[in-house]
Amino acid sequence: MELTVVGSVALDTVETPHGRNEEGLGGAATFFSLAAANYVPVHMVAVVGEDFPNEHVGLLKSKNINTEGLETASGKTFRWAGRYHDDMNNRDTLDTQLNVFEQFHPKLPPKAQEAPFLFLANIHPALQLEVLDQSEAAFKGLDTMNLWIDTALDDLKKVLAQVDAVIINDSEVEDLTGQRNILKGAEAIMAMGPKTVVIKKGEHGCVLIQGDQRFVVPAFLLSDVVDPTGAGDSFAGGFMGSLAKEGNTDFDALRRAVVHGTVVASFACEAFGPDRIATITEKDIHQRFEAFRELCQF
Amino acid sequence: MELTVVGSVALDTVETPHGRNEEGLGGAATFFSLAAANYVPVHMVAVVGEDFPNEHVGLLKSKNINTEGLETASGKTFRWAGRYHDDMNNRDTLDTQLNVFEQFHPKLPPKAQEAPFLFLANIHPALQLEVLDQSEAAFKGLDTMNLWIDTALDDLKKVLAQVDAVIINDSEVEDLTGQRNILKGAEAIMAMGPKTVVIKKGEHGCVLIQGDQRFVVPAFLLSDVVDPTGAGDSFAGGFMGSLAKEGNTDFDALRRAVVHGTVVASFACEAFGPDRIATITEKDIHQRFEAFRELCQF
Repeated sequence: MELTVVGSVALDTVETPHGRNEEGLGGAATFFSLAAANYVPVHMVAVVGEDFPNEHVGLLKSKNINTEGLETASGKTFRWAGRYHDDMNNRDTLDTQLNVFEQFHPKLPPKAQEAPFLFLANIHPALQLEVLDQSEAAFKGLDTMNLWIDTALDDLKKVLAQVDAVIINDSEVEDLTGQRNILKGAEAIMAMGPKTVVIKKGEHGCVLIQGDQRFVVPAFLLSDVVDPTGAGDSFAGGFMGSLAKEGNTDFDALRRAVVHGTVVASFACEAFGPDRIATITEKDIHQRFEAFRELCQF
Repeated sequence: MELTVVGSVALDTVETPHGRNEEGLGGAATFFSLAAANYVPVHMVAVVGEDFPNEHVGLLKSKNINTEGLETASGKTFRWAGRYHDDMNNRDTLDTQLNVFEQFHPKLPPKAQEAPFLFLANIHPALQLEVLDQSEAAFKGLDTMNLWIDTALDDLKKVLAQVDAVIINDSEVEDLTGQRNILKGAEAIMAMGPKTVVIKKGEHGCVLIQGDQRFVVPAFLLSDVVDPTGAGDSFAGGFMGSLAKEGNTDFDALRRAVVHGTVVASFACEAFGPDRIATITEKDIHQRFEAFRELCQF
């Protein structure tokens, strides 16, 4: 089944202990789409500026990604710059230039409206509400961030009431619910609307909770994390892509989707920006899925 | 097969957000023995002072634990006091009184010497070397702590060269090897001697590494962590107990041992001190083992 994502496309400048990547292709919708396109056709809805390199659009189009909903607005593309600490778990945002994103109102082309799976990547909850008004999706997933929890909670709660699954960091769970305990935090989020909660813990894996059903996986072990930017968005892409491919969202399908998210996110960390995630094949995913099973099996 | 542990027996005063436990039964050898005694007979080698309550000895004896090697020295029992932060992941040591531990030299009774499995709980590496000289064990496990890495590294390296498996926290791996990456840290430790490395990550689970074989498990999810004191020692007890019960230390047995350690450690967190770990049954362990399998299965 087809899948629509609405989110940011950006030019990222990233510094990690492994080096520096200047104005590389980035943004949540980019990582999400490149990950999810390994599973199903993806409709990408986003905005870029007139300065956005054509080669990036070419890359997306070559990957099972429909860019009909990728609007080019007058002005400059959204830019983000960040520097990772030596431990790779923390980063400082050095610069954020919203540019064309400031005036963005997502417009879903007909096929993007009709797609049975929708993912609201991390953008202002007011824009996410505009997307929900246009979508006919039967299964809706959501990402958000601390900024919106702190500054746009009312809108965020309206979004939460309308989605099926939320994918969220452990620190964001605490921000949103006041609960540090993952089980209590998930319970508080489920009370806000979503039936399914996926809590990401970075290098420590993730937890899936639906009602009283629970599933926990570690992260894939990597000797070298080159650049974790986009790993969370790639996780979401693998997760939603796997569900859309199966056309099934029962708890066993959700378990497999979490593993696919974990596998795809591990690739995303292996190179700067989308360099690795843009080159993986179905075979790569299958092999790492089996390696991951071997890693966890007892 | 029988199992010997050498380590501390203490009276702990612990404060957590759930309350305060004044001079309760504690110490690494205590938690280890109570956990491991669910699997095999345990020989405990430790020292207490004349003030050590008889009821604690009675509890240990009632649990498949041979206290022949539990020496009573003149003076006071080792005491530790600590306070956990709200997040339960960090604690401050408020007081440490070594007391009888200052003059302690472990003496293994004949049966403790002959046991095929030995665990060196966290004591000064010089004492661990004295134990190794007395033991005939075929499989030797080791715990240590940052203090010895910082102050007794030469002795610790001599111990590491003689043991089969080390169980260590992720922060201690970084201290010992300078590597933050778990795979690189484990490799550096294996180069020091131990064939098997188990890296504990607290609420994030643990990683087992032997050569190029790897196994990762999350921790069991708990709604309420009452007191994490002794969880790591209980993990080691479940791990070594499971291996000794199987009489097998191949990688599949090590995987199962890690899961048993995880399961037993989860019980340890559910009450102050050893209150829960001292009351679990084989049936409790079996049920949680199966619940854990369900939690991780895909």
